[in-house]
Amino acid sequence: MKEGFNYQIDYIEDGGVTSPMGYRASAVYADIKGVGKERLDLGLILSDNKATISSYFTTNLVKAAPVQYGINLLSKNNPKISAIIVNSGNANACTGIDGYNDCVNITSALAKKLKIHQDEVFMSSTGVIGNRLPTDKIISKLDLLIEQLDDDSGDLFADSILTTDQFRKEVAVISTYTDSNDELKSFIIGGTTKGAGMIAPSLATMLAFITTDVEIDKPLLDKILKTAIDKSFNSISVDGDMSTNDTVVVLANATCSVKIDESNIDIFQEALERVLTDLALMIVEDAEGGTKLVTLIVKGAKTDQDAKLCASKIANSPLVKTMFTGNDPNWGRLMSSAGASGADFDPNKVDIFFSDNDDEKPVHYVKNGLIIDNNLENAVHQIMLKPKYAIIIDLNNGDGYTKFYTSDLTIEYIKINADYRS
Amino acid sequence: MKEGFNYQIDYIEDGGVTSPMGYRASAVYADIKGVGKERLDLGLILSDNKATISSYFTTNLVKAAPVQYGINLLSKNNPKISAIIVNSGNANACTGIDGYNDCVNITSALAKKLKIHQDEVFMSSTGVIGNRLPTDKIISKLDLLIEQLDDDSGDLFADSILTTDQFRKEVAVISTYTDSNDELKSFIIGGTTKGAGMIAPSLATMLAFITTDVEIDKPLLDKILKTAIDKSFNSISVDGDMSTNDTVVVLANATCSVKIDESNIDIFQEALERVLTDLALMIVEDAEGGTKLVTLIVKGAKTDQDAKLCASKIANSPLVKTMFTGNDPNWGRLMSSAGASGADFDPNKVDIFFSDNDDEKPVHYVKNGLIIDNNLENAVHQIMLKPKYAIIIDLNNGDGYTKFYTSDLTIEYIKINADYRS
Repeated sequence: MKEGFNYQIDYIEDGGVTSPMGYRASAVYADIKGVGKERLDLGLILSDNKATISSYFTTNLVKAAPVQYGINLLSKNNPKISAIIVNSGNANACTGIDGYNDCVNITSALAKKLKIHQDEVFMSSTGVIGNRLPTDKIISKLDLLIEQLDDDSGDLFADSILTTDQFRKEVAVISTYTDSNDELKSFIIGGTTKGAGMIAPSLATMLAFITTDVEIDKPLLDKILKTAIDKSFNSISVDGDMSTNDTVVVLANATCSVKIDESNIDIFQEALERVLTDLALMIVEDAEGGTKLVTLIVKGAKTDQDAKLCASKIANSPLVKTMFTGNDPNWGRLMSSAGASGADFDPNKVDIFFSDNDDEKPVHYVKNGLIIDNNLENAVHQIMLKPKYAIIIDLNNGDGYTKFYTSDLTIEYIKINADYRS
Repeated sequence: MKEGFNYQIDYIEDGGVTSPMGYRASAVYADIKGVGKERLDLGLILSDNKATISSYFTTNLVKAAPVQYGINLLSKNNPKISAIIVNSGNANACTGIDGYNDCVNITSALAKKLKIHQDEVFMSSTGVIGNRLPTDKIISKLDLLIEQLDDDSGDLFADSILTTDQFRKEVAVISTYTDSNDELKSFIIGGTTKGAGMIAPSLATMLAFITTDVEIDKPLLDKILKTAIDKSFNSISVDGDMSTNDTVVVLANATCSVKIDESNIDIFQEALERVLTDLALMIVEDAEGGTKLVTLIVKGAKTDQDAKLCASKIANSPLVKTMFTGNDPNWGRLMSSAGASGADFDPNKVDIFFSDNDDEKPVHYVKNGLIIDNNLENAVHQIMLKPKYAIIIDLNNGDGYTKFYTSDLTIEYIKINADYRS
């Protein structure tokens, strides 16, 4: 709590993208994958007001058609968005100019039906790469999609964007505070995400859609979103290796009475980071075949960047991930990955701790690059048997710090991804 | 064959490190892992003459004690080596100054027994990180090791350096040519390697020991070795992420009548590249749990470096590796990995071919970034069912070229590496 400034952030039970004011959503089955397996695969979010939009797109050189379309859309001056349409089952990537035209045709059809401008429609896709979208099937479902719009259907939308995910991922928080006039104010941020193939730098698609009812200028929203993504989606073991379709979008529709400015920006930032971090952790927890959520804290690095380099390397190492699978305190794999990361440190000064709880006193296992006592192995093994635990690596070389999240690598991952055309 | 210059390179049946003249080897069981499982785990190579040495050590910041010892040894002016002692089962890494002293004590004891200078003894280790070497056990076996030295025991040495390897890896070639005086000359290069955990950037140890009977100056040998390693051990899917112990060593003992100079350097270089590439391919074929040997040819890159960046990214992607496992022509994963590699190219110009034989006409599957014909999928699937095949990716952006080797990612890999303390 900031001094002289009361605020709190609370979770909204079963909250999601329709929790903030002025948003409705819906989802239908459109058989997009063409395998006749009946599940929701086409979703829509509609904002009552035109919303300010901020987005973060994949850095992959190979960008899916909807990503290219989105980049063009957002390159316009002060873009405003009313609708987001998303399909799963087909990524519309590596589909050339035809794939791009499919985006144009779908957003045009939806805009006409909603009686809004085509530039108010944002589109995302996720699924198999290299196949054309079944545009006719999608367009034929638009009336039904619009008809079913509801301010309580965020969960259906959340379901419709899933692919290999094992569970729905959504969250919403309400921030309450007293402003400088002693008035009680509140705003809501809701969000949903999809992604599960991310237990390695493996290029599976991550999509996230965030809604909020505050009023905020685009430059400020852009800045806050970037920081929040660095601490969340870019701190799970997928960092840097983005897929052809990765997209994070925030809509702010100014429906509540809160305008974000210097007086309340910290509250908004904290709430947005909470929503994005919760969603990112759900992705790690749902890692394809994963059974562990391991928090890697790298401290004492020369710089924050070095800390992240080190954590990312460890988090993505198949040997480290399989050590988690086997609950094996094989700390040499941590040292070796750190040493290969490019981070600057002295191996003879490294300390490693294991903890099953951030707040509890951790087990000090390695000191100055050497194991303290082989008898501690069982204590560490016991920690590693738990589904969630933390490893703290102190490089003792400065103040650089990062918190990173990863999972284990299991037989299930292979089964999921080695399926013919998964 | 060079114009006006006849030469040929032939394989020596069952050849290895004792195939060149003036080398003997031996191996014994010393119970180094301390699990009482009787297998050769301590090996020795002895050269009759002091040999010129060239070596390539891990770039990992965390270097095992024998690597640090070797670097110090080779930092002396024109080092000459007579003996190489290698243990498996224990990496002697992350063991601090005590671990370094273990190297000193073992090489000292061996030198005394062989009546050579301690600086003529090179040592390597591979196995679990973080445990002290059983120095007494090793020293107690030195007499037996020396007693059993034999010029036909290269295969026993090759066996003694293995860890999770499924098969012995050795090769030897004899190069024959007529020199400028029309005299028939020949020299031999033999080698052995270990490594199998390398189907991902996974930091398992690779060791390689190469022997030859030519005379060659150290600067020339250093230069040739570097090029040969780039085309072999640095072109399999482990590139860049070296373990704490990785070491490649070449000894040249000047026992035959050939001196390498400008007149015959090309022959020596080709022979050395042949030996190193064959050994590197054996590592890929023995990838932990791997069942495929896939050759990735990236051509048309802006530079050779870009080609390698692209090939390495594809070769190390878990999603690509599991696509190999499933024999799935999921070319989108190739495009997506290439796009995330950092290589510079236009996705709309990429061509992809599949071939089960480098010489045969390959199947042209992707043209200008788009699939040519979905009906080709079965033809590509048939190729992918084979244990060895090639994928050619033409970025159509220049003359950059590389040949890279990788394998698939299977359930067996997880089983091997998730074992408690593998």
